[in-house]
Amino acid sequence: MTAAADRQPAPRKKTGRRPGSADTRRTVLEAARAEFAARGYQKASMRAIARAAGVDAALLHHYFGSKDKLFLAALEFPIDPRLLVARVLEGDRDAVGERLARLVLGLWEQPTVRDRLLAVLRTAAASEEVAGLMRGFMVAEVVTGVAAGLDVPQLRVELAMSQVIGLALARYVIAVEPLASASPDELLPLLARSLQGCLGQD
Amino acid sequence: MTAAADRQPAPRKKTGRRPGSADTRRTVLEAARAEFAARGYQKASMRAIARAAGVDAALLHHYFGSKDKLFLAALEFPIDPRLLVARVLEGDRDAVGERLARLVLGLWEQPTVRDRLLAVLRTAAASEEVAGLMRGFMVAEVVTGVAAGLDVPQLRVELAMSQVIGLALARYVIAVEPLASASPDELLPLLARSLQGCLGQD
Repeated sequence: MTAAADRQPAPRKKTGRRPGSADTRRTVLEAARAEFAARGYQKASMRAIARAAGVDAALLHHYFGSKDKLFLAALEFPIDPRLLVARVLEGDRDAVGERLARLVLGLWEQPTVRDRLLAVLRTAAASEEVAGLMRGFMVAEVVTGVAAGLDVPQLRVELAMSQVIGLALARYVIAVEPLASASPDELLPLLARSLQGCLGQD
Repeated sequence: MTAAADRQPAPRKKTGRRPGSADTRRTVLEAARAEFAARGYQKASMRAIARAAGVDAALLHHYFGSKDKLFLAALEFPIDPRLLVARVLEGDRDAVGERLARLVLGLWEQPTVRDRLLAVLRTAAASEEVAGLMRGFMVAEVVTGVAAGLDVPQLRVELAMSQVIGLALARYVIAVEPLASASPDELLPLLARSLQGCLGQD
């Protein structure tokens, strides 16, 4: 770690950062954000991030896992969308709309998760760079998997995602009534039908 | 008009503005934006706007029509959403999803209309004040009418609107592929089913 830090050309305020320390973590996440912003999700390289942060590439993998996990950490994503994918794909295809609606509402209705998701949305809305990054990540890690698992065109998965994002904006950001105050139980069957329309059989 | 302009306390660069002139129009629209921003759509008053702009209230009505028309002009809305409402309500309720999908795509696919709609969305995204205004207008002039006409709860109409806005963001702003490049003909049946899920019979 010390040898790796020595390779880092930028001046350092602190020395002797330990692997996994808060200081190293911050440096790595900054380097990751810069690399993702400069090259996009697909082209960004773990090796380049390690180099820019002055840490060993193997340690980077050890502490942050794969590129998608580092990306989620860098953007402070509160959930791993790929876990959701797995849960949406488990079970009857006729009920995929309801399963997705239940998952989505379950997440958005947790205030801490919602706040972080909204912060990610706001960052993406304010920056074309972040929006492009999010798009690259979502297509590579979410859309492709759901489309393949359900055997539907990606278009349908993206339309379902657009419904989820539109609902989040209308309910939690624009706070239009009565949508903003409706109980999750009231919303669930409606959202389920809309999503089933996007994802279900013809 | 000259007498009315004399009552206006703010200093004027130009004098002798004629009713309907570009100069008067600009002054009126500025006064309208200020009044709508200060008091919200429902509480804003045509009389107060006329007073602030230094024009006669009767002339204001003559040149801009009702409050909703002045609002649309002030926010440079490219369409009158109430005309859409009328067209969505005409015809078979089993086909309401398809009718709305066709209307929405027909509008968004016109580049000049799309650019103006996106500008309105961006302004609303950037300003809580404008977002609140839009919300007040849409509920008062669109949601209530569609819900009454279809005899469904407002919640359902707002969910359908959230799908339309989410799709617009995903297709035209975030430009996620293949959604961004899909032809309107490809999108139409999917959007129709999603909207029918929101608005149609159980």
